[in-house]
Amino acid sequence: MLSFACDYLEGAHVEILKRLAETNDIKEPGYGEDSFCESAKAKIRQVCQCPEAEIYFLVGGTQTNAVVIDSLLQKYEGVVATETGHVNVHEAGAIEYTGHKVVTVPSYQGKMKATDLEALLKGFWDDASHDHMVFPGMVYLSHPTEYGTLYSRKELEEIALICREYQIPLYIDGARLGYGLMSRESDLTLSVIAEICDVFYIGGTKVGALCGEAVVFTKKNMPKHFMTMVKQHGAMLAKGRLLGIQFDTLFTDDLYFEISRHAIAMAEKLKEGFKERGYSFYLDSPTNQQFIILSKPEIEKLKDKVSFDYWDKLDEEHQVVRFATSWATKAEDIEALMELLDTLT
Amino acid sequence: MLSFACDYLEGAHVEILKRLAETNDIKEPGYGEDSFCESAKAKIRQVCQCPEAEIYFLVGGTQTNAVVIDSLLQKYEGVVATETGHVNVHEAGAIEYTGHKVVTVPSYQGKMKATDLEALLKGFWDDASHDHMVFPGMVYLSHPTEYGTLYSRKELEEIALICREYQIPLYIDGARLGYGLMSRESDLTLSVIAEICDVFYIGGTKVGALCGEAVVFTKKNMPKHFMTMVKQHGAMLAKGRLLGIQFDTLFTDDLYFEISRHAIAMAEKLKEGFKERGYSFYLDSPTNQQFIILSKPEIEKLKDKVSFDYWDKLDEEHQVVRFATSWATKAEDIEALMELLDTLT
Amino acid sequence: MLSFACDYLEGAHVEILKRLAETNDIKEPGYGEDSFCESAKAKIRQVCQCPEAEIYFLVGGTQTNAVVIDSLLQKYEGVVATETGHVNVHEAGAIEYTGHKVVTVPSYQGKMKATDLEALLKGFWDDASHDHMVFPGMVYLSHPTEYGTLYSRKELEEIALICREYQIPLYIDGARLGYGLMSRESDLTLSVIAEICDVFYIGGTKVGALCGEAVVFTKKNMPKHFMTMVKQHGAMLAKGRLLGIQFDTLFTDDLYFEISRHAIAMAEKLKEGFKERGYSFYLDSPTNQQFIILSKPEIEKLKDKVSFDYWDKLDEEHQVVRFATSWATKAEDIEALMELLDTLT
Amino acid sequence: MLSFACDYLEGAHVEILKRLAETNDIKEPGYGEDSFCESAKAKIRQVCQCPEAEIYFLVGGTQTNAVVIDSLLQKYEGVVATETGHVNVHEAGAIEYTGHKVVTVPSYQGKMKATDLEALLKGFWDDASHDHMVFPGMVYLSHPTEYGTLYSRKELEEIALICREYQIPLYIDGARLGYGLMSRESDLTLSVIAEICDVFYIGGTKVGALCGEAVVFTKKNMPKHFMTMVKQHGAMLAKGRLLGIQFDTLFTDDLYFEISRHAIAMAEKLKEGFKERGYSFYLDSPTNQQFIILSKPEIEKLKDKVSFDYWDKLDEEHQVVRFATSWATKAEDIEALMELLDTLT
Repeated sequence: MLSFACDYLEGAHVEILKRLAETNDIKEPGYGEDSFCESAKAKIRQVCQCPEAEIYFLVGGTQTNAVVIDSLLQKYEGVVATETGHVNVHEAGAIEYTGHKVVTVPSYQGKMKATDLEALLKGFWDDASHDHMVFPGMVYLSHPTEYGTLYSRKELEEIALICREYQIPLYIDGARLGYGLMSRESDLTLSVIAEICDVFYIGGTKVGALCGEAVVFTKKNMPKHFMTMVKQHGAMLAKGRLLGIQFDTLFTDDLYFEISRHAIAMAEKLKEGFKERGYSFYLDSPTNQQFIILSKPEIEKLKDKVSFDYWDKLDEEHQVVRFATSWATKAEDIEALMELLDTLT
Repeated sequence: MLSFACDYLEGAHVEILKRLAETNDIKEPGYGEDSFCESAKAKIRQVCQCPEAEIYFLVGGTQTNAVVIDSLLQKYEGVVATETGHVNVHEAGAIEYTGHKVVTVPSYQGKMKATDLEALLKGFWDDASHDHMVFPGMVYLSHPTEYGTLYSRKELEEIALICREYQIPLYIDGARLGYGLMSRESDLTLSVIAEICDVFYIGGTKVGALCGEAVVFTKKNMPKHFMTMVKQHGAMLAKGRLLGIQFDTLFTDDLYFEISRHAIAMAEKLKEGFKERGYSFYLDSPTNQQFIILSKPEIEKLKDKVSFDYWDKLDEEHQVVRFATSWATKAEDIEALMELLDTLT
Repeated sequence: MLSFACDYLEGAHVEILKRLAETNDIKEPGYGEDSFCESAKAKIRQVCQCPEAEIYFLVGGTQTNAVVIDSLLQKYEGVVATETGHVNVHEAGAIEYTGHKVVTVPSYQGKMKATDLEALLKGFWDDASHDHMVFPGMVYLSHPTEYGTLYSRKELEEIALICREYQIPLYIDGARLGYGLMSRESDLTLSVIAEICDVFYIGGTKVGALCGEAVVFTKKNMPKHFMTMVKQHGAMLAKGRLLGIQFDTLFTDDLYFEISRHAIAMAEKLKEGFKERGYSFYLDSPTNQQFIILSKPEIEKLKDKVSFDYWDKLDEEHQVVRFATSWATKAEDIEALMELLDTLT
Repeated sequence: MLSFACDYLEGAHVEILKRLAETNDIKEPGYGEDSFCESAKAKIRQVCQCPEAEIYFLVGGTQTNAVVIDSLLQKYEGVVATETGHVNVHEAGAIEYTGHKVVTVPSYQGKMKATDLEALLKGFWDDASHDHMVFPGMVYLSHPTEYGTLYSRKELEEIALICREYQIPLYIDGARLGYGLMSRESDLTLSVIAEICDVFYIGGTKVGALCGEAVVFTKKNMPKHFMTMVKQHGAMLAKGRLLGIQFDTLFTDDLYFEISRHAIAMAEKLKEGFKERGYSFYLDSPTNQQFIILSKPEIEKLKDKVSFDYWDKLDEEHQVVRFATSWATKAEDIEALMELLDTLT
């Protein structure tokens, strides 16, 4: 069966498997102190043009968000996110589990507005009783967002400016960062992101790896004894090499960018195909997640032949569904999908 | 350089790498709902002779301990462990981070005595003010222990009997379970362990996998909404297939037992070699971890040619060190080590 | 200076002080096991017409909310509250500190609508990916609300019905419960509240006591080992008699209701006075908190002669302020305030 | 019935009740920002000869320990205490509930030895794998201890010296501090304690107050936004005046010391009486808690006429029991107890 259900349907890019096999017998110390991690970090520092970056590899996205947010916040602080932010909706309360509140601002197709953020921060500090409230201690945003949308450089800089003014760090969840960077609409690069924000992570799980996210602290601001907090969160991998080898491979010969570009090309092909056939989009996504409006009969006819993800219900007769492409999507898959659509009418 | 520093120095058993490559392009759902996980679970249920077992795959040991213990305990309870238990010493407070106390009993070469456990539980319930104390809500033990020692079937049954009497679950940390089961001194099998305890985990990370531990709830006692708690702990793997494939391979054609048996054979060879050369042992370990007493000059001469782990300081002149073998240890490595020892004199 | 800043400006009702003095030398056991607590509980059971009620006295409101919510929720659950609910805004993240999320529904002058609650619960259970989200595990509402508004019996019953349908408890924060019950607009009694909800607390701190809140579990649903969880939260009072004596006094000869009725009479007098003088109200509150719109010049003229609380900024020229009456407010205070207002023009 | 069960059997010192009544009608702001708290703080600063001391009033002992320890520790740190320390045994896991481990050293009649502390700290930092362990982040000791014993000035200074060397704060739990200071064997004063340690609390609950403990940060080291963390812990009292008035009274005309001295005189009378009658003591306590060894028949004869607390079981035939005096103990009570003892023979 065809599937566009998500961007983690397959294993890993073949280069990663190859490299895992090649390095398999080499004895290396555990806990991320191996030479593969070192090499991967050096490559990431270089592509970020941030020689001072401190980098730590973690296993998955929710884990990364919980560890980074908890370790950066003071005990009396919470994290600001949009209402639709992943940390606020789909992480089973992993942030609150660490004792911290997620303080929300409105979401515009998944994006945060600098003006809303400023209003929240100003409102907090102007409030005479703010000592009775959760201090907004950092800002979380995802890029691309959960709706596949992108921040422009200007938008990110405006948000960062507010963060600087209120002296709180800006953290970018880059679970799908590659798919954002390679979008035609992107005016960002890894080095620009490294410059703008205080910490971000480069998603591996959804961009070619078996697992793994690379956390990048860009301002010499990795929390003291971060490793111990990682372990305290149950997030330390004994064989850290598994993450080191994967990121080393992804950042060799621009593999990360190349496979991300492929996913975007596939997404554009898919988008074009739906458009040509007269389908409506819930929003205009420039990345690998496409949100399409299907009628109930359309869903009935498709669902046994192709899998996709169910998003919001639009009205009694229509549903928003998500088709995702990835590094592993093949042109044939898109073509097969289009043929399938053609049988509907 | 030779290394016996730990049992997670290499990647994974070659069969695992092979299987990862073979299955790489198959599209499967995420979060452990893939067919590989299902197949691996079925095989584990069978080898445990426990058709009702509920199985969940997690990534690492500390994570597994934190998730299992936190999800099984009531909020007013703590976990009983020996003073030297991994959860009490080397997990950076991951259990306390979940809000639960580790209540300790004495350690005898890493092992817990049923009589001490009974005294603790009886003392708690006899104490008129126990409502002001942490309730002992489950028992944790590691098998093999952190000192490489093993419980006999009788010892485990005695501990389990006390647990039943006080109606608290018995949890066994099997980070190195294969190395325990394949020891000559073991009178336990997976099915006996499944019968005796309420939950245990079969360690993959230290026994041939890149990562992964298989948690087995043996009494239809997996906590309700366990998956959500796993996610809340940041412990859910998006590509659960990575764990499923590995355990499916380990439990195909007895691979898990076979490679464990090899590690034990290597450990015996190593032990014999040290003995023949007149070295003293800190304790008599029947498993893959060997604790040897070295003098400072001996350490000086060895440390640039072979790596091992530093354990307790015995006295001003002597140090306990650990040599670990694993599924990946080669007979040549042991031979090279023995030659090295011979050069010392 | 005149003050209407809040409803906890003075010490305690004189009867409480008298009773504290009378009983001072009597030796009683600690931790709430004294005869005064027993007597107070019996009186509360009777006035609630709930002979099975389990009652526990705690010291303050935020503490009570944190202990009750944390002890009732499963680890994977959160509490549903309105956006303006005290637990969501003014408790410094005390709920999240216990590891639980506050899941919000819209606020209508502080009140929750049963339809919004139902939509949230239905939406959660209908969502195929709800295992990745915080389970809505109980409902919190305050009565009177933070805006002084009241639920009608019908409104509460509708909310309770939804809770029953989804099998989650309904918890009512009654920090100012007396002021709600004695409002002319109330169609509720303690016994009706006890019947409708699963747990509520009768506020003492704001209604005549030095401190203290009486938690009433109405359905034999006090969590097992609640006392131990109270202690774990640092919420247990060694001299529990302090709370027992106060609630015993408040529920002797209807004192709690009598002094609440007085506060309401004072509030109506104050409201009338503002109305007569042409002031606008932010909303129509039937309880002891009155929200009045003042212009900046009005505030300037008043602020050195009377204290009140600053609420939301209405626009650049106007501010919402709160005047609160209480059991201790004197008719002369209201008269003095009115004279003061008359000098403004 | 006679009772020596604990030191919180009665209400409060009559001066406190008087002062509560006198000040009852005065309107004051909430949350500890009232003039009574200010006055009490000034008096405590003076008696401590510590003009820079930052003081915060909390309600009870467990609460105080949890708030102080949690707010001073970094997330990766735990608190060092003796095995018998109150935070380790009788606080229902309130410290672990905040996410921090209690790391233990041996107890000698309740006391910690500087040499054990040093060994623990040195051992931690010397351990190559300490990043995998809980960092010892502060030291907790109680004075008097849970066994009524006292540290000498020299002993405290030795412990403080180790703390300084390892740059971690020393915190003294003074739940019964008055009874320690007024012991004949004490060579400490409040000002010496303030000089030696980084933070301590002056117990009110057990020394004449209805409730309340005064936390004293002596080195300008009150954690930033401490008030918000107090609220987050559910520990903030709305009517902070209740604590301010009590401590202001206790520190007016040396009342705190005078009533503590009385309790000690009563304890000495009691001790003398038991000694004269040939009873054995579990240990030699110079404070208000006396630990006496009673045979089972002795207990049987006494238990219906006098209440006391059951401590450790000494052997099958003997039990350690505790008799406590307090500010409220009367000479007649001691005499009646002695007469009772005389009837036993």
